[in-house]
Amino acid sequence: MSKVSVFCISAALLGSAMQVDAKEGMFTPEQLPSIAGDLKETGLAIPASSINDLTAFPMGAIVSLGGCSASFVSDKGLAVTNHHCARGSVQYNSTPENNYLKDGFLAKEIGDELPAAPGTRMFVTVDFSDVTDKVIGGIDDDVQGRDRYDLIEANRKALIADCESEAGFRCSVPSFFQGLEYKLIKQMEIRDVRIAYAPADSIGKYGGDVDNWMWPRHTGDFSFYRAYVGKDGKPADYSEDNVPFKPDHFLKVSAAGLEDGDFVMAAGYPGSTNRYARLSQVSYTFDWLYPTYLELVDAWIKTIENASEEGSDARIKYEATLAGLNNFHKNTLGQLSGAKRVGLVPRRAEREEQLAAWLDKNGKSEMKQALASLDAVSAEQMQMNKQNFWYNNLSRAQLLSSAQNLYRNAIEREKPDAERERGYQERDQIRIKEGVERIERRFDAVVDQAVWQKMISMYLEQPEENRVAAFDKAVGIDGDTDGKTLQKKLKAFYDNTSLTSTEERLKWLTASRADFENSNDPFIKLAVALFDTEMAIEDKSKTLSGKAAALRPKYMSAIIEWQKSLGSLAYPDANSTLRVTYGNVMGGSPKDGLIYEPFTRLEGITEKDTGETPFDSPKKQLELIKDKQYGPYKLEAINSVPVNFLTDLDSTGGNSGSATLNAKAELIGLLFDGTFESVNSDWDFDPKTTRTIHVDSRYMLWVMEYVDGATNLIEEMTIVK
Amino acid sequence: MSKVSVFCISAALLGSAMQVDAKEGMFTPEQLPSIAGDLKETGLAIPASSINDLTAFPMGAIVSLGGCSASFVSDKGLAVTNHHCARGSVQYNSTPENNYLKDGFLAKEIGDELPAAPGTRMFVTVDFSDVTDKVIGGIDDDVQGRDRYDLIEANRKALIADCESEAGFRCSVPSFFQGLEYKLIKQMEIRDVRIAYAPADSIGKYGGDVDNWMWPRHTGDFSFYRAYVGKDGKPADYSEDNVPFKPDHFLKVSAAGLEDGDFVMAAGYPGSTNRYARLSQVSYTFDWLYPTYLELVDAWIKTIENASEEGSDARIKYEATLAGLNNFHKNTLGQLSGAKRVGLVPRRAEREEQLAAWLDKNGKSEMKQALASLDAVSAEQMQMNKQNFWYNNLSRAQLLSSAQNLYRNAIEREKPDAERERGYQERDQIRIKEGVERIERRFDAVVDQAVWQKMISMYLEQPEENRVAAFDKAVGIDGDTDGKTLQKKLKAFYDNTSLTSTEERLKWLTASRADFENSNDPFIKLAVALFDTEMAIEDKSKTLSGKAAALRPKYMSAIIEWQKSLGSLAYPDANSTLRVTYGNVMGGSPKDGLIYEPFTRLEGITEKDTGETPFDSPKKQLELIKDKQYGPYKLEAINSVPVNFLTDLDSTGGNSGSATLNAKAELIGLLFDGTFESVNSDWDFDPKTTRTIHVDSRYMLWVMEYVDGATNLIEEMTIVK
Repeated sequence: MSKVSVFCISAALLGSAMQVDAKEGMFTPEQLPSIAGDLKETGLAIPASSINDLTAFPMGAIVSLGGCSASFVSDKGLAVTNHHCARGSVQYNSTPENNYLKDGFLAKEIGDELPAAPGTRMFVTVDFSDVTDKVIGGIDDDVQGRDRYDLIEANRKALIADCESEAGFRCSVPSFFQGLEYKLIKQMEIRDVRIAYAPADSIGKYGGDVDNWMWPRHTGDFSFYRAYVGKDGKPADYSEDNVPFKPDHFLKVSAAGLEDGDFVMAAGYPGSTNRYARLSQVSYTFDWLYPTYLELVDAWIKTIENASEEGSDARIKYEATLAGLNNFHKNTLGQLSGAKRVGLVPRRAEREEQLAAWLDKNGKSEMKQALASLDAVSAEQMQMNKQNFWYNNLSRAQLLSSAQNLYRNAIEREKPDAERERGYQERDQIRIKEGVERIERRFDAVVDQAVWQKMISMYLEQPEENRVAAFDKAVGIDGDTDGKTLQKKLKAFYDNTSLTSTEERLKWLTASRADFENSNDPFIKLAVALFDTEMAIEDKSKTLSGKAAALRPKYMSAIIEWQKSLGSLAYPDANSTLRVTYGNVMGGSPKDGLIYEPFTRLEGITEKDTGETPFDSPKKQLELIKDKQYGPYKLEAINSVPVNFLTDLDSTGGNSGSATLNAKAELIGLLFDGTFESVNSDWDFDPKTTRTIHVDSRYMLWVMEYVDGATNLIEEMTIVK
Repeated sequence: MSKVSVFCISAALLGSAMQVDAKEGMFTPEQLPSIAGDLKETGLAIPASSINDLTAFPMGAIVSLGGCSASFVSDKGLAVTNHHCARGSVQYNSTPENNYLKDGFLAKEIGDELPAAPGTRMFVTVDFSDVTDKVIGGIDDDVQGRDRYDLIEANRKALIADCESEAGFRCSVPSFFQGLEYKLIKQMEIRDVRIAYAPADSIGKYGGDVDNWMWPRHTGDFSFYRAYVGKDGKPADYSEDNVPFKPDHFLKVSAAGLEDGDFVMAAGYPGSTNRYARLSQVSYTFDWLYPTYLELVDAWIKTIENASEEGSDARIKYEATLAGLNNFHKNTLGQLSGAKRVGLVPRRAEREEQLAAWLDKNGKSEMKQALASLDAVSAEQMQMNKQNFWYNNLSRAQLLSSAQNLYRNAIEREKPDAERERGYQERDQIRIKEGVERIERRFDAVVDQAVWQKMISMYLEQPEENRVAAFDKAVGIDGDTDGKTLQKKLKAFYDNTSLTSTEERLKWLTASRADFENSNDPFIKLAVALFDTEMAIEDKSKTLSGKAAALRPKYMSAIIEWQKSLGSLAYPDANSTLRVTYGNVMGGSPKDGLIYEPFTRLEGITEKDTGETPFDSPKKQLELIKDKQYGPYKLEAINSVPVNFLTDLDSTGGNSGSATLNAKAELIGLLFDGTFESVNSDWDFDPKTTRTIHVDSRYMLWVMEYVDGATNLIEEMTIVK
């Protein structure tokens, strides 16, 4: 049966008989051999066992950018990721004279690349081991609350310190299955990352916010970094003497691409999911937290927009913040409507009932007791979050959060390194410094003050019992403070602070606790005044986390046993570690009467084009499309070059830039988004509507060859048919 | 080749090879025999000649509601139309105790019906003849401008007066092909119309404004009127003694419905199209008029909303106005984006070039000269419209327009009937009265004043040369008048007028010109003050119309000859006369990557349902769907009861309620909307994207049988399989 026929039958039977089982699961590579049978049945053409070694091909080619994924595509450190993952680096190098966002950037030769934005890192996994015993094996059952929390933290920090004793590596001890397991992950941390090629925004960000989360899509969301290391092959700071990193493995790039229905898998670093959240947490999130965030973000966006004229320097500094907020807003709206559509809450209730019944039937009374205790702790946590919500958001004012961060750093730096809070150890100092510097590019005092005023006014609107006396006293406000008075008070903060100067902020990185406590800077004084409150909140939070830490693994054990009894392999929630998801190229029916085709075409770009951002394709590209210059990249079934395609893969934030591979583990695209109907798959994977969006390698190569002339990179890569 | 296969091939080849030729054309029934071949080829199973007799079956069953279409479905005057066409009558009868909008209404027996809203009429065409000679045959070529206009008007009025000398009939003399032809249409005017059955808004208006113009769609947009006449069978005012009208013809209703690809035609009264507008008019409309209207309507909506609290009595009175404005807004936005998408302006430019080349080639220099002259007159008309735009919109204040209308009526009533302006003759008096009464239900003084103030402030913002001295002087304003002062001045109008009282307004219907001129009512005084200006504008407008009237027929002759040379039959622009459009049930691809299925399913209702307006399907319906109670109305291909379907028919406003017929002229649904991508088909029919939306007769019957128990009506109709 040809592909066309398969699609036809789907189309004809949609809604009634179309029951395509999307392959839920973000599996750890080590889990893959357990599902080798299904992988093979789905279409994997290489042994499943060959993809469970993180340091062998192909997983050895998959790297993390911290928040995004990427993969090596040459033996000279060339790595491909999403345009939206590398765009900050393009922006960092752009000037009015050389506007790379507008015009794109291409290094015609190795060595012509531009340095990525400060803080850009590439992490190459080199080792991976189970350390569950070392983290929790020695902790007695009666160690609870804060003590348990602190012991786990100490054990993790010790493991990390030991692992990082070798220079140039970054280690972490993430928990899997909610603390049932811990792994030590060792990654080479490449610090000299450079931008090798990025198409113009009018290709890489085509559709912009309008098309974000949407299908049909026509975004050329790809860019190339190159990793550099010292001449000794070890990670080094940027230097002209550095040389391209030589990875052990890299991916071949397919110019043949896929057809509808083909096997596909993606490897990357998904950030976070909540597939095992308890019903109470789901209700809290969808009934309270998300709607409250919408209110907050809505006000935040409007405040920034009102405080900064379009096109002004201030507005330009906040473009990235606004883009993030708008993205969050759209995502949250999608999650709320999606939760309603798929019946998230009743489904979770049903699942909990089924689990409880199974526990009863199998006499697992201890597990059932643990669940009840866990729910009780969760209830306390949620109550606490609600109470502190608006207070916590006061630090959306960047100068306040910066002062608090710097003061905390001074206090932590008085302690021996191993005893410091995570995030304030020696290993973290450079990132703290980068954070302090980064404010410069995303800060305007007028906007920051307006945001702070808005946050304070929303904080003041809530019931008085949620207010924090230390804050009210330090700022000199109460429930009766009117807008004008508040504005005057806040203006005094900004008029009298020196933290608006990057140079001044940097000085505080090495200041002592006493320096802070003797300072007259209003934001520093406020940070000092709030410190005890912050610590009290933190202590309560850690105590509850410690309580939960003893209970969550029992809950997950119950889930795993129950799933096993049903013949399913439970997978851990995403935690920014390497995962594999697999399935097929697949369109879908997001709603009755509507069908998503699996591929979009070049001609769709022309169709959308208005000549204005974000639908302002380069004229050259439009001409090529008009002339049907498809080259060797045409997909016969759609009679054009495929631009983006849909799959039923299981993905989430952090997966951006993930290598999308065919049955032979050749790169056939990059994962870059999910459809609007998929956004609440973080909570509940709905096989009918969850679809992931990829940019097709044929479009990438077509743009590189015909539009941008990036033939040097095409030649450098191994292109396969 | 089965229907499913047809769809499949379309789906697979979409965008590239899919060249489905939608059948452009709103043909007059008399044109049908000329295209009998294509009708038969498309699937018509009865002779084309059988549908060109307006007084025979099936056209004899098609009636007009004035702005909507309907059709007889029993020999007892039962007529089916759209819910949105009859909703005003449901609303008119609704009270807090008997909320028929919310609960629906069903007359269980003949005689239990409720009277339709005042002014509701049903027009049954009884005669149709060509009167071109009588209208323009006697007018010399050298009669131009205002004289030509007046002569044509006088001839039309004389024909109408003669035709209407028989009581109970309404006649009209519409022009076809822009004045190339005139027809005299004689319609029986049924004045006693009653509402027999309307489903609840939660079915009939399911999806509301959100889904308006949208696909996929799940709207049960159908309702039933019953026409009553006097015992003598002649039209009569409402009376308990009246009896159901016995139409000569009525439609059978199909319970078997259609499948994808089936032949379909619709008969109804499309209002107005501009398929032959000259390029300059297209540019004027899309570059200036529509954007300006958007600005106006946006401000108008906001003003009404700000001036009336949600849920207040005032707001309720403006719901219909708001719905109309929102509809217009969405439609206009769609037209603007559609025009850009299909390249309306360049396409029209291309067409004019082709026509010009054909004229040149065939030595039609006289026609070419006429075109140039027509464009010159049009330019003057457009210039005048621009200049008066904001002034003309000042009468959005209902009390001003009412006062102007009443004063004009008094002036016209001084003349012999035949000499009066159209709209102010004896035949129009009852409608003027109904209009004066109707204000009561759609008026609130606070809102009206706010709207007026907004319109005046927008009028004041334009260049001074466009202002009307008589208005400025009468209201006492100039360019420096600030908002507060203006508000005070306008408040005096509302404080001192008696026109807010329906009783008072009605008195002015019979007042003399002198009564008006001696009145102290501020709105009456203003109407008197503006009269000379109004007449001057009207005179200029009529003069230009008269000039154009001599030229437009030459332009249309050129078009017709040119089209004929290309083997095409030109059809006249829609003009609220009976038209037939035909084609096929057909999904489509509104954009690359997206496919519209041709049918929606019952399950789509459940999918959309939020429990809140406009997605608040009756619980009973949701239960029936859950239980898959399809009865005999299931369409196997979609494994459900079809709710709405798409066709490639050519339709526009006024087509609402049109009978949708199968190849045997059985009713298989009602036309009720077009997709968003079709809205600018009024200007340019794009066969790729134009799709018309229908409610399926199977859904209508399913709702009637299972949800609303309207079995009495099902029994009354002739249902065929």
